Amino acid sequence: MTSSTKRKLTPVPLTQVTVEDVFWAPRIRVNRERTIPHEYKQCKDTGRIDAFLLNWKPGMEPKPHYFWDSDVAKWIEAASYSLATHPEAELDALLDEVIEKIAGAQQENGYLNNYFTQVEPENRWINLGMWHELYCAGHLMEAAVAHFEATGKRKFLDVMCRYADYIDSVFGPGKRDGCPGHEEIELALVKLYRVTGEQRYLKLSQFFLDQRGQKPSFFKREMEKLTPEQASGHRHFFGEEDDFHTEYCQDHLPVREQSEVVGHAVRAMYLYCGMADVANETGDQGLLAACERLWDNVCRKRMYITGGIGPSRSNEGFTQDYDLPNESAYAETCAAVALVFWNHRLLQLQGDSRFADVMERALYNGTISGVSLDGKKFFYVNPLESRGDHHRQDWFGCACCPPNIARLIASIGGYIYSQAEGDAYVHLYVRGSGTLQVGGKQVVLRQETDYPWDGTIRISVEPKEPTVFGLNLRIPNWSRNATLIVNGEKMEVDSLTNLGYARIEREWKSGDEVELVLPMPVERIESHPAVRQNSGCVALQRGPVVYCIEQVDNPVPLHRVILPHDAELKTQFDKELLGGVAVVKGNALIVDDADWDGMLYRAEPSKLKPFEITAIPYYAWDHREPGEMRVWIREM
Amino acid sequence: MTSSTKRKLTPVPLTQVTVEDVFWAPRIRVNRERTIPHEYKQCKDTGRIDAFLLNWKPGMEPKPHYFWDSDVAKWIEAASYSLATHPEAELDALLDEVIEKIAGAQQENGYLNNYFTQVEPENRWINLGMWHELYCAGHLMEAAVAHFEATGKRKFLDVMCRYADYIDSVFGPGKRDGCPGHEEIELALVKLYRVTGEQRYLKLSQFFLDQRGQKPSFFKREMEKLTPEQASGHRHFFGEEDDFHTEYCQDHLPVREQSEVVGHAVRAMYLYCGMADVANETGDQGLLAACERLWDNVCRKRMYITGGIGPSRSNEGFTQDYDLPNESAYAETCAAVALVFWNHRLLQLQGDSRFADVMERALYNGTISGVSLDGKKFFYVNPLESRGDHHRQDWFGCACCPPNIARLIASIGGYIYSQAEGDAYVHLYVRGSGTLQVGGKQVVLRQETDYPWDGTIRISVEPKEPTVFGLNLRIPNWSRNATLIVNGEKMEVDSLTNLGYARIEREWKSGDEVELVLPMPVERIESHPAVRQNSGCVALQRGPVVYCIEQVDNPVPLHRVILPHDAELKTQFDKELLGGVAVVKGNALIVDDADWDGMLYRAEPSKLKPFEITAIPYYAWDHREPGEMRVWIREM
Repeated sequence: MTSSTKRKLTPVPLTQVTVEDVFWAPRIRVNRERTIPHEYKQCKDTGRIDAFLLNWKPGMEPKPHYFWDSDVAKWIEAASYSLATHPEAELDALLDEVIEKIAGAQQENGYLNNYFTQVEPENRWINLGMWHELYCAGHLMEAAVAHFEATGKRKFLDVMCRYADYIDSVFGPGKRDGCPGHEEIELALVKLYRVTGEQRYLKLSQFFLDQRGQKPSFFKREMEKLTPEQASGHRHFFGEEDDFHTEYCQDHLPVREQSEVVGHAVRAMYLYCGMADVANETGDQGLLAACERLWDNVCRKRMYITGGIGPSRSNEGFTQDYDLPNESAYAETCAAVALVFWNHRLLQLQGDSRFADVMERALYNGTISGVSLDGKKFFYVNPLESRGDHHRQDWFGCACCPPNIARLIASIGGYIYSQAEGDAYVHLYVRGSGTLQVGGKQVVLRQETDYPWDGTIRISVEPKEPTVFGLNLRIPNWSRNATLIVNGEKMEVDSLTNLGYARIEREWKSGDEVELVLPMPVERIESHPAVRQNSGCVALQRGPVVYCIEQVDNPVPLHRVILPHDAELKTQFDKELLGGVAVVKGNALIVDDADWDGMLYRAEPSKLKPFEITAIPYYAWDHREPGEMRVWIREM
Repeated sequence: MTSSTKRKLTPVPLTQVTVEDVFWAPRIRVNRERTIPHEYKQCKDTGRIDAFLLNWKPGMEPKPHYFWDSDVAKWIEAASYSLATHPEAELDALLDEVIEKIAGAQQENGYLNNYFTQVEPENRWINLGMWHELYCAGHLMEAAVAHFEATGKRKFLDVMCRYADYIDSVFGPGKRDGCPGHEEIELALVKLYRVTGEQRYLKLSQFFLDQRGQKPSFFKREMEKLTPEQASGHRHFFGEEDDFHTEYCQDHLPVREQSEVVGHAVRAMYLYCGMADVANETGDQGLLAACERLWDNVCRKRMYITGGIGPSRSNEGFTQDYDLPNESAYAETCAAVALVFWNHRLLQLQGDSRFADVMERALYNGTISGVSLDGKKFFYVNPLESRGDHHRQDWFGCACCPPNIARLIASIGGYIYSQAEGDAYVHLYVRGSGTLQVGGKQVVLRQETDYPWDGTIRISVEPKEPTVFGLNLRIPNWSRNATLIVNGEKMEVDSLTNLGYARIEREWKSGDEVELVLPMPVERIESHPAVRQNSGCVALQRGPVVYCIEQVDNPVPLHRVILPHDAELKTQFDKELLGGVAVVKGNALIVDDADWDGMLYRAEPSKLKPFEITAIPYYAWDHREPGEMRVWIREM
């Protein structure tokens, strides 16, 4: 992987993109019509929204929780993205109403947190490590920026600038120290900086980044001041006095010295997003180099084939290299979503398709598995194997995942294209169009494709006027033998490709047509030999889509299914099934138990019987009769 | 499996047996010279022995624990068995001293429990479910019987009869109800009955058996009377008020209706021992039939290949059929020891070698793994796979396992032979001799063999006078093509074999020689296809010995080792290694990771390289440099 030719890209905003495909367009519609209203109702019914009215009194149920603000904030963000591409007066009004409530909860000095205003006002800022105060502020800032960009209305943005100003008056050099145990505000402050131009927000973000990993740890000093009751439950994450450790919230080392992804996966990803953002704004090479090392660690050693990350339930996060248990995989939906956020940022910084490859892997697999096809049920945890007892739920007490996947789906258009001085980038293949600004000139790219079910992509290039630029088409790392035709002329893909993008530089004029064909055979994927949990197994992948087998299609104990390495695997598109999916079928084997007669162990090898295997996309599992599921299938 | 020809056997007591082999004799010596003194010292140093002096006052450390009595009791039992076959004045005197202390702790009314005399005297008998009061009584009874039989001294026996009389005055029909949450007293009372002839003890054992599984559960009624503090920690095992369940201590059904092994594995096994004992004394067919069903469930569906049982740490016990995880296997040493106890009892009842097969499996594998070869370190938990972080310890806060394995090894001679009216039985092949009473006549059987390392067994039959009887030689279920020669004449093994024993009936006279040859190739053992955790893997077994691979011999990640199904496996006896073991070697393969270059997933299959595999007996693992271990090896 060379690091030459690094270019700074700018994402084409979702308002400049249309999504008209069979894959994402229905998801976006369901997200808008079902998920966003469902999540609003859940927030309302559970008291999360009216908590901003500050009517809570001791003894009342429900009692607000200190992470509630963030759930509402992410819902606002999702709704705003939806509004940006699909105006709806009713949603617009509803947003105004919610924002009105939030604004009403802001204190004289700008402080804004419903929990620490009405439930524990005496305990503001005393437990940054575990009480999510700055995290909630960050999500509200992201929501405010999204709402402003979607509607042009400044109200929420102004509220959040006042809050940011207040936070800036409390924290910083010469003021008080500290940083959030759950990162988020770092990236949010950069968003706020970008939309307002206020340098203080960028500096505050840098301050929070740099507070992390000091010796002695800020969190240790903080915890020493807490009462035992206030600190209860923290020992699990931070250890005991004489073995205090803060990997859980990435506080083990200064951020520029970090190389290994540790601790809570969502915290880690949000931190790295903030690092990438600050690096992007300041050119801080130390932050960028740390991001590169951390990326190598997570994406080359600690990521599920689905793009899920964080295998352990115990810390909702990382363990050791190559430790990727399937049945007990935590792989929180939020973590895969945040992996997309981070890779999208690195992609803009580096223009290297390996970041888009990871982004695509997570987008088509481990993120969207987190929401049902009908948009109303959610996985918090995304295992790669199940005995049939893991199902999506309407909502969670800790409801971070549902609005997180909603804001991702609502903004998917923003991940497809980038623009640069002399270049246009297509990262994702999605039927629809993007209107780019390339070297100051408008270029419309229009994709015709049935991706991800078919690998043929036709792109019509429509510059307003003939323009010289490089059209960069991502050659996914899963593809082999890609072919590329420009206006009927076959191109030599390999020689055009750098950093994973085939770059065609020419004077583009309206009517130019590019055809990229990415052959999509069903591939048997192995994992690195160090991944003990996948030993002897393969996963099926076609294009970017990772497959699984479910008991409803394969009515046998799935661990007994064996895929011979030479078994032909065929694909069949079933438009009725699971919203329309390419189904994979093949002649496999099953271990026969008929002649075991009450034995538990024996020297005689088991017999094998033919068995037709049927695999479906992983993201679509758990939509029919409950039963076993597995991604990694025994091979011989 | 026919159930015809059931005979009632009597074990030949260990005092009538000599053990002179290379396998058990050194174990017995180490047990006597190292383990028993080590365990005494641990019991002494931790305060367990002097707790019987009743000097404890509130605030003093260490505070006795309510299971301490049982640890001392099992140590006395082990020491008594040792004394029975190897008199030692010093140990004899030490036992007298400890027994003196115990006797001194007995109360006026016969009550004897150091914890509930000095720590919580007000709480006697209020929590039979979790506080081990009757369990401790049972272990003290077993110890008293063992001491009496070893030394002829009645002191401890009389103490325990007084205690049993007191318990009998408290519990029973027309008195108070209840039964122990941790079974043990049931089998102990039968031992006490056998040695004293006191029918009340047998009846009390029956009473405790029959109290189990009533509706509403005794334990539920009991718990309702406890304070929340007293009941704390029980909810994990018993569930909540509206979901109270008592599988944990086998109280879900009346014992005669039980078919599935549930809950805590040691509790279950001790219960089933008690059931078998009462069935043996009373001919209770309901209890025997329940034992048969439970045996089918555990031995055909829930037993590790090592004879370990109880896969789950959470309940120290059973889960579902065929759920046998390797790395997280609990497989408590005590549970495997108790599986031997139970199978030994069923073997006497039924004369069916399947019980001896299970007994042998546990004896050569999952029990003795629980103690180091030097006799001073112990496993509580016996996993079948390790990443190198599981090691034997000197002792445990809950120290049930060390004295349990010590009492088993000290009494191993008692498991080898049985006698019956017209039959002599050899269950285990161990160099040495047994002096049997067959039809009232003395018969000495003398075994010459290097079992378990070699399958040739020469038995000289030495009746005091020529005697007609059936000599029953067990044909182990692992053996194929056994050959049998009597005085130079080859016999037809299959036609002689019934219920797993080749029976040679004739007039035996001194000088008669029998040669049994059990070929011992290294076998690749598969587990039932329903065992998901062993899918695609085989275990190596030779004779009764189950093998494992350790990283110290195989310096690679063990999950990457593949054993081709046609790889030749050779055995080599290494008398220097691990006390002398047959080592298995063969040409295997290893998955190569050299060409993976930072990839985590790829479509190209991994390359395989030749790798010489070295396997050692499972029981001997974790004696050299720490590293990975696994029993189940990937096969292709």
